[in-house]
Amino acid sequence: MTIFPVVLVGGGPGAWDLITVRGQRALVDADVILADHLGPASELDKLCDTAGKDIVDVSKLPYQRQTSQEKINALLVSHARAGRKVVRLKGGDPFVFGRGFEEVQALRAAGLEYQVVPGVTSAVAVPGVVDVPVTQRGVVHAATIVSGHLPPGHPKSLVDWGALARSGATLSIVMGVKNAGAIATTLQAEGMDAATPAAIIADGTMDSQRAVRCTLGELGDVVKQTPIAPPAVIVIGEVAGL
Amino acid sequence: MTIFPVVLVGGGPGAWDLITVRGQRALVDADVILADHLGPASELDKLCDTAGKDIVDVSKLPYQRQTSQEKINALLVSHARAGRKVVRLKGGDPFVFGRGFEEVQALRAAGLEYQVVPGVTSAVAVPGVVDVPVTQRGVVHAATIVSGHLPPGHPKSLVDWGALARSGATLSIVMGVKNAGAIATTLQAEGMDAATPAAIIADGTMDSQRAVRCTLGELGDVVKQTPIAPPAVIVIGEVAGL
Repeated sequence: MTIFPVVLVGGGPGAWDLITVRGQRALVDADVILADHLGPASELDKLCDTAGKDIVDVSKLPYQRQTSQEKINALLVSHARAGRKVVRLKGGDPFVFGRGFEEVQALRAAGLEYQVVPGVTSAVAVPGVVDVPVTQRGVVHAATIVSGHLPPGHPKSLVDWGALARSGATLSIVMGVKNAGAIATTLQAEGMDAATPAAIIADGTMDSQRAVRCTLGELGDVVKQTPIAPPAVIVIGEVAGL
Repeated sequence: MTIFPVVLVGGGPGAWDLITVRGQRALVDADVILADHLGPASELDKLCDTAGKDIVDVSKLPYQRQTSQEKINALLVSHARAGRKVVRLKGGDPFVFGRGFEEVQALRAAGLEYQVVPGVTSAVAVPGVVDVPVTQRGVVHAATIVSGHLPPGHPKSLVDWGALARSGATLSIVMGVKNAGAIATTLQAEGMDAATPAAIIADGTMDSQRAVRCTLGELGDVVKQTPIAPPAVIVIGEVAGL
């Protein structure tokens, strides 16, 4: 097996043992681990002997402490150039809202070899752990993973919520707690039925997991009235009512 | 840890070590493994000692041998009722076009307890292994996983290809090789630019992996002229050109 100087590892949705076998092996081999707060970072010791390793917290906490992407990129490059085996441990999959490709671009620019180890993305797995399949034969054959970090209509939003409302695809929204009410209002204004089933799952796959089921019409109020904090996945579609 | 009589395990995109740590543990504990042809089924011996286990091939090969879903459901129930620890090993994630929820429904109807272990879905991971991120900050903040097993306009199709074409989301199409030309034509007729980058990746993450890049306008011809056999993922969107 080739050892790459930098390995971007998708850590999965949160539970330590939902990382891949390949991802775990990369952690075992690593000299330095640059870890997010998401994924299995808090239980790293269950995956490898952390004693001899340099564990660097590069969290980006929403609305709180931030490690800039430029800083993370620079750390990846400097540790790798120092001859250390670097694992960049990310929550979910590196390429689903993980800014993993920006890290790939930085590594390419630095002339460093890298490997990407995919991970279980929360947008698919977290509905699953509360028995909501994002697709179901005869019900829905498409599912859209979408970021809710910007409200509909925000000048920087790249999401066409109207087209998604009309697409019939299951919607699995990550980073959407803060904007859940605005998103639900927009989806209904764009033609989605208020009775469409929905589910909100916070801390999915972890001991602290909490899930609430409601309808699209109730979603805004439910998120306001229920103590739901990120990370959470909001799934909207017939599959949430099966 | 609770031992469930039946565990549905997402085996990931193909490479044996892209199963989760939890999934591997379930295989190690199993008495019977009912396995698809997808995922790590051909390399099970790398994940567990298969000698003492009953390995049952329940493949559904496209346009070939089929094990009916009713037969699979019946096997799950009968093995579990016989007191054996059953793992249902599926490709990708059990709830992404995996008919996993139909198996859940059968187990519920039989009054059997079960656990679902998510897997890395090919629709997200396979583009990633050829450095196509399904989302990218500033480029696209939504990605749709969609089945191409029925052509657009087919009476049983549940997919609104027009809405998807207009949504701006990255499209990651599974089971779409046979209908790639018809899908590409429809997406363009519905307003998607013929110059939109695309990639086709067959046998993603396996030694036999092959990838071709083209544009949406070229997709139909490329699939016809290139020896691409399922399983393959077709990804369409700006991210395929980064």
